[in-house]
Amino acid sequence: MRFFSDNTATACPEILAAIEQANHGRARAYGDDDWTRRLDAVLGEHFGAPVRAFAVATGTAANSLALATLSPPYGAVFAHHEAHIAVDECGAPGFFSGGAQLELLPGAHGRLDGATVAAALEAHPRSVHNVQPAALSLTQATELGTVYRPAEVAQLAALAHRHGVKVHMDGARFANAVAFLGCHPAELTWRAGVDVLSFGATKNGALTAEAVVFFDAALVRDFELRRKRAGHLLSKSRYVAAQLLAYLESGVWQRNAGRTNTLAQRIGAAAGAALLHPVEANEVFVKLGLARRAALRAAGFEFYDWGAEAAGEARFVVSWDQPEQDVTALCAALARP
Amino acid sequence: MRFFSDNTATACPEILAAIEQANHGRARAYGDDDWTRRLDAVLGEHFGAPVRAFAVATGTAANSLALATLSPPYGAVFAHHEAHIAVDECGAPGFFSGGAQLELLPGAHGRLDGATVAAALEAHPRSVHNVQPAALSLTQATELGTVYRPAEVAQLAALAHRHGVKVHMDGARFANAVAFLGCHPAELTWRAGVDVLSFGATKNGALTAEAVVFFDAALVRDFELRRKRAGHLLSKSRYVAAQLLAYLESGVWQRNAGRTNTLAQRIGAAAGAALLHPVEANEVFVKLGLARRAALRAAGFEFYDWGAEAAGEARFVVSWDQPEQDVTALCAALARP
Amino acid sequence: MRFFSDNTATACPEILAAIEQANHGRARAYGDDDWTRRLDAVLGEHFGAPVRAFAVATGTAANSLALATLSPPYGAVFAHHEAHIAVDECGAPGFFSGGAQLELLPGAHGRLDGATVAAALEAHPRSVHNVQPAALSLTQATELGTVYRPAEVAQLAALAHRHGVKVHMDGARFANAVAFLGCHPAELTWRAGVDVLSFGATKNGALTAEAVVFFDAALVRDFELRRKRAGHLLSKSRYVAAQLLAYLESGVWQRNAGRTNTLAQRIGAAAGAALLHPVEANEVFVKLGLARRAALRAAGFEFYDWGAEAAGEARFVVSWDQPEQDVTALCAALARP
Amino acid sequence: MRFFSDNTATACPEILAAIEQANHGRARAYGDDDWTRRLDAVLGEHFGAPVRAFAVATGTAANSLALATLSPPYGAVFAHHEAHIAVDECGAPGFFSGGAQLELLPGAHGRLDGATVAAALEAHPRSVHNVQPAALSLTQATELGTVYRPAEVAQLAALAHRHGVKVHMDGARFANAVAFLGCHPAELTWRAGVDVLSFGATKNGALTAEAVVFFDAALVRDFELRRKRAGHLLSKSRYVAAQLLAYLESGVWQRNAGRTNTLAQRIGAAAGAALLHPVEANEVFVKLGLARRAALRAAGFEFYDWGAEAAGEARFVVSWDQPEQDVTALCAALARP
Repeated sequence: MRFFSDNTATACPEILAAIEQANHGRARAYGDDDWTRRLDAVLGEHFGAPVRAFAVATGTAANSLALATLSPPYGAVFAHHEAHIAVDECGAPGFFSGGAQLELLPGAHGRLDGATVAAALEAHPRSVHNVQPAALSLTQATELGTVYRPAEVAQLAALAHRHGVKVHMDGARFANAVAFLGCHPAELTWRAGVDVLSFGATKNGALTAEAVVFFDAALVRDFELRRKRAGHLLSKSRYVAAQLLAYLESGVWQRNAGRTNTLAQRIGAAAGAALLHPVEANEVFVKLGLARRAALRAAGFEFYDWGAEAAGEARFVVSWDQPEQDVTALCAALARP
Repeated sequence: MRFFSDNTATACPEILAAIEQANHGRARAYGDDDWTRRLDAVLGEHFGAPVRAFAVATGTAANSLALATLSPPYGAVFAHHEAHIAVDECGAPGFFSGGAQLELLPGAHGRLDGATVAAALEAHPRSVHNVQPAALSLTQATELGTVYRPAEVAQLAALAHRHGVKVHMDGARFANAVAFLGCHPAELTWRAGVDVLSFGATKNGALTAEAVVFFDAALVRDFELRRKRAGHLLSKSRYVAAQLLAYLESGVWQRNAGRTNTLAQRIGAAAGAALLHPVEANEVFVKLGLARRAALRAAGFEFYDWGAEAAGEARFVVSWDQPEQDVTALCAALARP
Repeated sequence: MRFFSDNTATACPEILAAIEQANHGRARAYGDDDWTRRLDAVLGEHFGAPVRAFAVATGTAANSLALATLSPPYGAVFAHHEAHIAVDECGAPGFFSGGAQLELLPGAHGRLDGATVAAALEAHPRSVHNVQPAALSLTQATELGTVYRPAEVAQLAALAHRHGVKVHMDGARFANAVAFLGCHPAELTWRAGVDVLSFGATKNGALTAEAVVFFDAALVRDFELRRKRAGHLLSKSRYVAAQLLAYLESGVWQRNAGRTNTLAQRIGAAAGAALLHPVEANEVFVKLGLARRAALRAAGFEFYDWGAEAAGEARFVVSWDQPEQDVTALCAALARP
Repeated sequence: MRFFSDNTATACPEILAAIEQANHGRARAYGDDDWTRRLDAVLGEHFGAPVRAFAVATGTAANSLALATLSPPYGAVFAHHEAHIAVDECGAPGFFSGGAQLELLPGAHGRLDGATVAAALEAHPRSVHNVQPAALSLTQATELGTVYRPAEVAQLAALAHRHGVKVHMDGARFANAVAFLGCHPAELTWRAGVDVLSFGATKNGALTAEAVVFFDAALVRDFELRRKRAGHLLSKSRYVAAQLLAYLESGVWQRNAGRTNTLAQRIGAAAGAALLHPVEANEVFVKLGLARRAALRAAGFEFYDWGAEAAGEARFVVSWDQPEQDVTALCAALARP
C-alpha cells in the first residue's frame, strides 16, 4: 500500500485518451499546433482572465523557468525553507537564473506569514553589495499539506509588490488547494496578486505536463527563449498541450483533487493527536514514534520518513488512483494506539 | 503534404501501446521503477556493450547534458557549423555548461573530415588565455542528411582522443544512419570511439523520448545531478523509459528508419541534378530556384526553405508516418522540369 | 574621525615602496615574472608548508574563485549567516560556481560551532534532488570581530572532511586573527585542516592585493583557468605580487594587525557593558541606543549602524593608519554614560 | 630587447605619482571617494559628451562586464575571429553573460567590413531556436595593429543599430587609434554610434586600470551589480580611479600612444615587403620565414610567433617605455635581408 508520493500514480484515463486523440495527422513542431495554440484561451477561461500559458514537462522546469524570468542573476528569491525549490530541485533556481540566491524563511505548517515576509523584505539591504529582492515564491498547497487562504496570498503579494518584488506560486498541487477552499482559481492567483503560476498536472493525473501561467503578458518577456535554451520546448508539443487541455476540460483536475483531499482527511482524522499539520490537501504528516512507524511499515504501508530521525515522523500522500481500501487500512492502523 | 520535419509526425502505435501498458499500478518516482531500471540492460544489449543510459524528453536536453558532463565551463566543443547544437538550440550548450564555447568547423555535406578536425585540434592554443578543447560533437546522421561511415567516426574519434578530447554523437537520427549503413550500432559508437551518444527516438516514432548513452561508466560522473537540476528528471519516469524500451524491443526503430530512408531516396532520385547532398538518411536537399520552389509550394507541398534566399533551396524530410502517396506526388512534381 | 571600515585606509609605505621598486624594466605579463614566481615560496615559508598561491585584486574574487574551485554548480557551501560571502558579495559565489547554494548557519558572536555544523552536515540529504555538500567556509577573523581558536578550526575542519567537504577560510582579516592568538599561521590553516585560504592584505595595508593559498596542490585543479576567465588574472601581475611579498617580508602584516587589534581593545574596554561581542580583532560592536549613537555621530565619529535599526547598534573598525587620537577620543566618548 | 607585448611595460611616472598623491587620508570604500566621483566628469569632458564611467582592473573584466550588460544569456555577440574576446579571454564573455554565443566573422587585417557584418546580421535567424543578436564588438585598434576610420565605425554601428544590436568597442589600445587618426575621441565613439567602450589604460602606461564608458546612461542598467558580483568593484577604488584621472589629465595617454605608434611605424618601414598588415598602432606583424625568425631571436629580440608555425610570422609590440635603441636595433636587423 503505497503512500510515497502522488507522482507514483498512473496517468488517468482522460489524459491517456487525449494523447491518443492527438495522435492523428502531422502537426507542426515546437508549439505551432492546434493543441498548443489553445492553451492560452483554455487556461485563460479557467482562470477568468487573459493569460499566457506555456507547457513544460516537469515541475522543476516550470518553477525555475518562471523564477529565472522574474529574477536577474543577482536576484534574491524569498521562499519558505521547506519549499520544493529550496530542498528538492538540486539548486535548479540558481542554475536557471545564473546564480540567484534563495532567502529562506520560517513559517508554521509550511506557510509564510506576513510579518516574517515583511521583516525579510524590509531588512534586506539594497546596496550594490547585496543580491536584490526579485521574487517571492509561495507554494500552494504547501509542502506540509496546508493551504494559503486567498486573503493570505493577497496580503503576501501586496507586501511583495510594495517592494518591487514579483510573486510566483508553485502550484504543483494547486488543484488540491482549490478543491479544499472551494474557491475560484482566480481568487488564489491574479486577483490575489500572483504574477506567475506553476500550474501542476502531473501529480494529479497527467502523464507529464505542467504549465507556466503568466497573468501579466509583459512578464513573459524572454520566457520562450529561456525554455528552448533549457531543452524544455518539446518538439511534439501537442502531446503535452493535449494533456493540459484534457486535464481542465474534462474536469478531471477537480475530481482527482477532491478525491485525494477527502481521503487524506480521513487519514488525518484517524491520526488524531499524532497529526502534525492540518490536513488541507492530499498529504498527511504524523508523529508516530520509531516503534509505531516501524510497525506500520512492517504491516505493508509504504511511505517516507520525515524530519529528524529520532522524532519518528512520517508523510503519507494520497494519489488520485489510490485504492480506497489502502486508505481504509491505513486509517485502521493509525487508529490503533 | 507535409515535409517540414520528422517531428511533425505522430507517435507510432507500438510506442503508444507501451505507454498504456506502463499505466498500471503505482511505481516509485524519479526513475526508481521497473521500466527505467531496464534501460541500461536493454540499451546495452542493443549496443553490444555495457552502458549507462538515461532518459530525457528532448534532444536539446540530451545533447546539452551530455556536453556539460564532458566539458568544463571553460571548455571548447568542436562541431560542424551546421550542427544542431550550433544553430538550433538557442545556445543550450553554453547554458548547460556555464559558458563553454563552440568551435565551429566547415565540412562538405555536413560532415567533418579528419584534416579539418586535426588542424583545429592542433591549432587550438592550450594556454590559460584560451578555452580548453573538451569535446568533439559529431551528428549522425548529419543535418544535411548524410552519414559518417564507421571508419570515419573511428578516425575522428581517434584524433579527438589523441588530444584528450571526448567524443559526443548527436544521434537524433541515429536510427537512419544505422539503417543506411546496415551495420551494427556498435560499429558507429563505442567500437569507433564514441564516448557518449544522444540516442534519439522522438523523430523516429516516439512521443517524446531520448536517451543519453554513456559507453564509459566513468564519464557519467555528475550527469544525474545535472539532469535533475535542469528539470530533466521526469517524476513519472516510467513513461519515457517505456517508450525507449518499446522503441528498441519492438524493432520499430529499424522499421521506421528503413522506411523513411527508402522514401527519401526515391525523392532524391526524382530530384536528379537538383540534389545538393547525397541522400543517406530521411532528408533531401534540393536546389530548385525560386520559381520552381514557389510552384511546388503552390501545389500543396509543405517544406522549409534552406540556405540563402536567392538560391531557392529546399529541404524535404520524410516522417515515419508519411503517406506513400505524398512521396509519389513529390517525386512526380520534382521530375517535372 | 572615520571608523567606517579598514578599507578606507591608505596603503602603507612599505607597500608603495614595493610597487615603485617593481616599476623597473619590462617583465613578461600574466604572472610570468620574478615577483609572481616568488609567491609560492614566500607564502610557503610563511605558512611553514608548501603552498600554491595566486594573487587577485579583491577579496570577493579570492573567496569566489576558491569556492568555485571547491564546489561544483550543484554544490552546497556551508557558512555563517553573517559571512561576507553571504551578505556582502552580491551573490558572487553563486555566479562564479554556476549556481552553488549557500547553506547559512547560526552561531554566537559570528562563529560557527561544532554542534551546528555537524547537525547541518548530517541532516543534509545526499539524493539527486539536493545540492551536494561541497565546502565549509570559515571567516577568520569573523565578521563580528571574533577569532576561532586553532582547536575550533581543527574540529570544524575534521567534521567537514569526514563528510567529504573541503574547508575554505575567508581570511580578509587573517592577520588580525594571528596577531590576537599569537600563534603560527600554520596552526590556523593547514595544520588545522584548512584546504584553501583567502589571504587578505588590502584591509591591512596593501593597495589592492589578496592571495588565494592552496595547501593541497591537487585542489588547485582549474583555478588558473577560472581566474583568467573571470578577468582576475592581472596582465601586469608583478605589481600585485610585489605588494604581497612586501606585506609578508617587511613584517608589516603583523605590525599593522597588532596595532589595530590593540586600539580596538581599548575601544572595547571603554565600551564596557555596551559591548556586544568580544574584541579579538580590529572591529568593535556596541549597543548604544539610538540617542547615544546619534550623539556620537554628531560629535564627529563616522561609523556604520549595525543590526536592526531600533537596537541602536554600531560598528567601529580600526584601520592600520588610524590616528591614535581618534581612538582616544572615541574611548572618551564611549566612557561617558 | 623585449617586443612581447605592451603589458610587459612598467607604469609611467605620472601614474605612480597619482597613486602616491591619492595615498593620504581615509576615503570611503567601494567608489564613494573623491577620485572615483570625478571619473564621469573627466571622461565626459574627454569624450565631449556626458558619460557614465566605471573603473575595473583588467581589460577582460571591462569587455565581459560591458558585453554581459548588453547581451542576455541567449544573446549572440558578433566579433572578428581574431578579437581578444574570442581568442584571449578564456571564454570570459560566455561566463559573464551566462552563455552568450560569439559569432565570429572574417575581415582583412583584423577589421570587420560592412558587407560581412550586414550579411551576418541579416542571415542570423530570429526564431526561438536561435541565440538573438545582441551586440557587435569592434576592436580599436584591432588585434592586427590596424585602425577603423570614423566612417567605418559609423557604418558598422548604423548596421548594428538597424538590427537592434548594441555596439561595444574594445579599446584596449584606443589611445593608439586616436593618436594614429589624429581625431577627437568622440569621432570614434559616441558620434559614430558606439554605445559602450572598454577604455584601456594598462597597456599604455597605467599600473592596472581600465574604464568601462557608457555613452548612454540607460544602458548602464545593472552594470554595477554585475561588477560587484564578479569581484571587480575594488574596495580601495581611489587608486584605480586616480590612475585613470592622471592618464587623461596629464596627457600621458596621448604622449605614450604617439610615441609607440611612431616607433612601430619605423619598424614597419624597415620590414618592407615582409610586412603583413598596415602599421596603424603599436603592433607590427611580419612574415620572416623560419630561418630569419630564428636568427632574430638568436640576436636577442624577444617577441611572439604568430599564425601557423610554418609561415614563420612574428609580432612585435612597442611599449610606452621601450628604449629607442631597441627599435633602432630591430629596424637594422629587419632591414638586413
